[in-house]
Order: sequence, then structure tokens, then C-alpha cells
Amino acid sequence: MTTPEPNARPGSAAGPGQLLHLIRSGEVRTRRELQARTGLSRSTVAARVDQLLREGLIREGGVDANLRGRPSTALVFDETRGAVLAADLGATHARAAVCDLGGRILAEHAQGFDIRQGPEASLAWLEATWRQLASSAGEPRILGVGLGVPGPVDFTSGRPENPPIMPGWHGYPVRDELVRRFGVPAFVENDANVMALGEFHAGFSGVPSFLFVKVSTGIGAGMVVGGELLRGADGGSGDIGHIRLGHPETGPVCACGARGCLAASASGGALVRRLCEAGLDATTTRDAVELARGGEPQAVALVREAGLLIGDVLATAVSLLNPRVLVVGGELVRAQDHFMSSLRERLYQRTQPLATRNLRILPSALGTRAGVIGAARLGIEELFSPEAVDRALAG
Amino acid sequence: MTTPEPNARPGSAAGPGQLLHLIRSGEVRTRRELQARTGLSRSTVAARVDQLLREGLIREGGVDANLRGRPSTALVFDETRGAVLAADLGATHARAAVCDLGGRILAEHAQGFDIRQGPEASLAWLEATWRQLASSAGEPRILGVGLGVPGPVDFTSGRPENPPIMPGWHGYPVRDELVRRFGVPAFVENDANVMALGEFHAGFSGVPSFLFVKVSTGIGAGMVVGGELLRGADGGSGDIGHIRLGHPETGPVCACGARGCLAASASGGALVRRLCEAGLDATTTRDAVELARGGEPQAVALVREAGLLIGDVLATAVSLLNPRVLVVGGELVRAQDHFMSSLRERLYQRTQPLATRNLRILPSALGTRAGVIGAARLGIEELFSPEAVDRALAG
Repeated sequence: MTTPEPNARPGSAAGPGQLLHLIRSGEVRTRRELQARTGLSRSTVAARVDQLLREGLIREGGVDANLRGRPSTALVFDETRGAVLAADLGATHARAAVCDLGGRILAEHAQGFDIRQGPEASLAWLEATWRQLASSAGEPRILGVGLGVPGPVDFTSGRPENPPIMPGWHGYPVRDELVRRFGVPAFVENDANVMALGEFHAGFSGVPSFLFVKVSTGIGAGMVVGGELLRGADGGSGDIGHIRLGHPETGPVCACGARGCLAASASGGALVRRLCEAGLDATTTRDAVELARGGEPQAVALVREAGLLIGDVLATAVSLLNPRVLVVGGELVRAQDHFMSSLRERLYQRTQPLATRNLRILPSALGTRAGVIGAARLGIEELFSPEAVDRALAG
Repeated sequence: MTTPEPNARPGSAAGPGQLLHLIRSGEVRTRRELQARTGLSRSTVAARVDQLLREGLIREGGVDANLRGRPSTALVFDETRGAVLAADLGATHARAAVCDLGGRILAEHAQGFDIRQGPEASLAWLEATWRQLASSAGEPRILGVGLGVPGPVDFTSGRPENPPIMPGWHGYPVRDELVRRFGVPAFVENDANVMALGEFHAGFSGVPSFLFVKVSTGIGAGMVVGGELLRGADGGSGDIGHIRLGHPETGPVCACGARGCLAASASGGALVRRLCEAGLDATTTRDAVELARGGEPQAVALVREAGLLIGDVLATAVSLLNPRVLVVGGELVRAQDHFMSSLRERLYQRTQPLATRNLRILPSALGTRAGVIGAARLGIEELFSPEAVDRALAG
């Protein structure tokens, strides 16, 4: 590794890792722009770009037409030089994929799934599924693994932390087990966090403060500030489903065992239970949403009520965090206006106009793929972080 | 060292600025520890330490006794080589100080103050006060200015953004005006944010996720994650006082003009209003708190009710952010058990045990000085950020 600059240490702000980051994000396209952006000399930029080219991390992508004066060769991150294994495990559904290094799905598989079968069986199923997907994607070079699970995760150790709906998973070394099975770096996160990451990179990567909320069988949130997930002290950030809006003794029973949680009234799981109690035919959150879409009055009323309750909690979240964009994902968004309009109504009602003046509230763009694309994105961002790249090039 | 400029470019992860940061925080004390911590070579560390010594940023502080083997010379940040001007402007009260570079107060002054007199009169008063304080502190070399104001601030421009209780301040270039008056870098922030920074550095600087809430005449919150303030998209983060818990048409009128805000029921301002309506003698939040401390039943009931309402909002904040420490500051904390016990009661009732398992809830350690010490800390942290130091040493 050529290091003409004394500051070119692992993770240095203008090391090759940072140059790659700028190229990969699309913020800069030429050597000249890299110079302008980093303040590095022409020769240093040239040497580092050569190193990135030599390592195959970037390639020259033709002449950049946007520049005035002498045309420059555009530099592009080579998204095809490898792939990541990605999966989104839900309570009752799983989606696995092989994605290129731009987060595009090369092959995917989704099916019903029971998280309660525990980590060994789940990871065995995942391994088999991923191996099959890698085969049908033409056996790309697998560089890493990203996984989302429906509960709190200590990101550093990659172990679930007392997840209420994942019996048997508490403290299980999911990350280490993935590393052992695939021999590449692996990253494990809470599902709402990976969905937040997926949605953020799907069109909002310049946004300084971004909030995502997922309303499916369970409810969770993820926050991306300055491009980074906010993880909280115990990996429990975004766990808004178990805020107790209702009475702790007489409120409805939640999947976590407590009473009065937001999720006990406003989640897809709660909708299903209440529709069944009313004699309607609903087994999954999707069934409940379909009933609302079809105009079934009780389903519509319940979906609207869920939107109001979630709007209440989001009023506080938005006042606290002052995000620029709030994306709402999960199954309930598919109930469209019934859900989103009541959520917006309550959110605007409960916040002062200044808090929402510049706020965009949008339904998920990625839909049911937010989790798996976010899991891929988690893997990619960790694998190609400036620190990781500088370490790899130095080592 | 040339005076660091605001808006410094990103520095290198192991440049001299980063070494100074490690020494300043007390995390490392010797050249040997700097080597171990940064991975830099012995000669590079030696050269950078020499540069910091030459610039007078650090000094050698005797032999470090904690190490085994050959004794090493301890390196310490020289907190006496300059000072910052700091002030906390409230709605009705102001505190100004000159602080050393460790955030210790060298001279201070506090008095009743009316923020509604507008920026020109306020800054003229501040300048006169600071010049007097600097004189009584022995005319230390002033390196920067830190200021907290009771409203949202766009940190980059240093201008208040539609502050509800600061007529005449919207868009006023407070930061530029301070730079013009004192010829040094200046930093302006929301008061709850500077208080959060002050409390964070007063004993929690290792905490990954830290939440502060201030309950005085108004209500606000500040969050410090990974050592950095969370500022939000428009400088409006932490503005929880105007979440509408009450009815938007029939709820009590708030100082912001709207109805039903948290602050309209749970702030010191609301307490004063309601005590007056009940025929009791209270003009300021301090009067209301004194009545509660004296056991006046209506005052106690109102303070307890405020604790419950704030506990409600904090339940959502804690579930969302998963902080390790929550510090509660502002006047109402002085009503001690009446306020804190109801706040805790509601917070625990409304969150699941996992969310609060590792959470410490503490009253402010800095009391009425939290704002001014935090303002000093804002100035110090910005002046000596790794980026600012590297830029200054390079320039």
C-alpha cells in the first residue's frame, strides 16, 4: 500500500477507504472531484485510485460528460465483483436473497417460516436456502452476510438480546455461527433497523435524519442519523411496539406477555385477534389488510384506530428527533389510505407545525423487500466502510 | 497554533487532533498508550506529541505511576492555556461565565433577564457582562464563545429557527454577530442541547447513548449519541414541550399559542398559571417549586401531575432511543421526590422492563449551572475537535 501521506492510517478521513466511500455513494465521479472534495494532492489521489483499481474495487467507467474542460474518466464502484447473502427473518415469514454489491437482488426466495423453531433449525434452513440461491445466481463470490431478525440484537456480538417473540434465540451467537458456516464477515441486526437502512439507501441517503417505522405482525422503528443507524445502549433502540399506551392491568394482552402495549392494539397481530373475536376470517396480518382493502367495515375501523395510535407515538418520535423523512413500512401500509391518513392526521394533530414543516411522510418504496434489501445493505456498508477497506488494504 | 475555524474539514482518524482528543478526554495518558490505542508507530506518535507540546496544547505532567515497567511521562491537556466565554440565556433568567478549557467556571454572573428584548439588546448586554467577567478572571486568552438559547437553532448557521418564545430572534445571525464582536469562533445551540452536553461531560462521557430532559419554565430534551449531539434535520430535535397530549381545541393554552401542548400542562410556566388561578402566590417557576417543597397540597399535586405527563413522553423517548442514562434537569427537579417519583413511576409503568433494565435515571448534577457549563463545553468541544485541531495545525 502506497502511503505518501502521514495521515493515511486505517480509517483515516482521506485514506483509500474514504475515497472508495465517496465513489461508491456516487458523490464524486472523477479523480479531479476527489481532489476537490478531500483536499488531497493530485499525486496522492492518483496513487490511491490506482490502488483501488488494482484491487478491483473500482473500475473506469468511460468519459464523464458532465464536466467542463478536459474530459475526465469516470470512476465507478464495481458492484458485480462479488455478492452478499441477505435475509430477513420475520415471526412467520422469511425472505432470503443473494444481492450484488449495489444491493440489487440476483436471486431470492420467500416462504412461510416459524422463528420459534429456534436458531439451529433456522440457520440450517438459511444455509441451505442461500446455497441454492447462490447456485441459481451463478455462484458469485460471496463477500459477506447480512441478517435481520425480529427482536433486539447486540450488534457488536451479533447476539439477540431477550427477544420477546424469538424463544431460544436469547444470547445465541448468530453472527459467529454465520461466520463459521460461510467463512466471511457477517452482520446481524434487528429487522426494523435493517428495513430502515434499506429504505434510507433506496432514495434518502443524503438525508441528515431519517426515521422508519414498520407495522406488520409487530411494530418497530429504525433511525438513521448522519448515515449511521442509531443503535441505543443495549441494541434496543426503536423498540416502540411495547410502549404501554393502554392500562397495564386491564389493557389487551400483547405477544410479549404484558398488557396495554402499543403492539397489543395497533399491530397486525392485534388486528387479526380482534377480527377473529368479531367472527371474521383472518389468520395473518395480510388477511386483515385484505379485509380492510376490501372495505370490510370492522377491518377498516381497526386499521384506522391502529393508525391513530401509531400516529400518537410518532408525534413524540418526530418532536424528539426532528427527522427530514419518515417512511412507514410493513404490511399495514398496504391498507393505504385507511392507515396512512389516520396516522398522518394524528401525527399532525399532536405536533406543532414547525416540527413537521419540512417533514416528508412516505409509504415504503421497497415494500416486502425492505428487510432483505436492508440486510444486504447492512452487509455491504459494513464490508466497505472506510475503516474496513483501509484495514483490508493495509493487511 | 492558529485559531481553529468553525466548519473545519474532516480530520484524519489518527492525526494530531485525534491524539489530542484522546489525551484531553483522559482516555490515554502516555505516549505508549497512544501507540497502543491508535496503532501508530512509536516515531509517529513521538513526532505528533512533540508538535502538540510545541503548540502548547498539552504539557508533560510528571511520571505516570500506573504503568508497569519503565515509567512514562504523563501527557495532559493544558486547560489553563486559554478560556471560553459561555452563557445560558433563558426566557427570564441568564447566566454568563468565563470558563477554562476543562469547563471549570473562572468567573460567573447570573441575573433576571428578558429574552423578548431581542437579539441586539441581549448581545450588547452579554458582551458587557463577558468583558467584565474576563477582567475579573484576570483577562485569560479567549479562544471561543459558546451560547445556549431557549429555542431551536440551526447549528450550522448559528441562527434561531422560529423560536416560539424568542420574538425578534428568528433568523438573526447570532453566531456571526458573536464572531464579529469577539473575533473568535462562536457556537450557538438550543438550551436543552447545551445542558445535555454539560451533564454528559460531567460524568457520563463514556456512555454510548445519553438522554437529558429539562423541565423549567419550558420543557426540552437533548440527546448525546456516540459523544455527539443529535441535532435533527432543522435543529429542532428535542423539542418535546410542544407535543400535544391534550385536546388541540379545548386543552390549556401554551406559551407557543397552541393548545394542549405538554408544556401547557407540565412546565413550570403552567404550574405558575394554575397556582395563580387557585389563588396562590407564584410568579416564577422557582416560586411554584418552593410551594411544592413546602408541602402546599395544590402545588404538590400539580408537580406530581407534571411528572406523570413528562414520564409519559419519556416512556416513548426511552423505548425509541434505548439510552443508558437519563438525566432530568431544570427547576422542577428541585421539587425532588414529588416530581422525580411520579416521573419514574409513569416511565416504568409505560415501558417494558427490558427497555429500562440498564437505564439509570438521575437528577441533574450541575443544577442551575448545567446550561452555562454546557455552553462552555460546546465551545471547547468544537474548538478542540480532531478536525478543528488538524485543520489549525495544517493551516
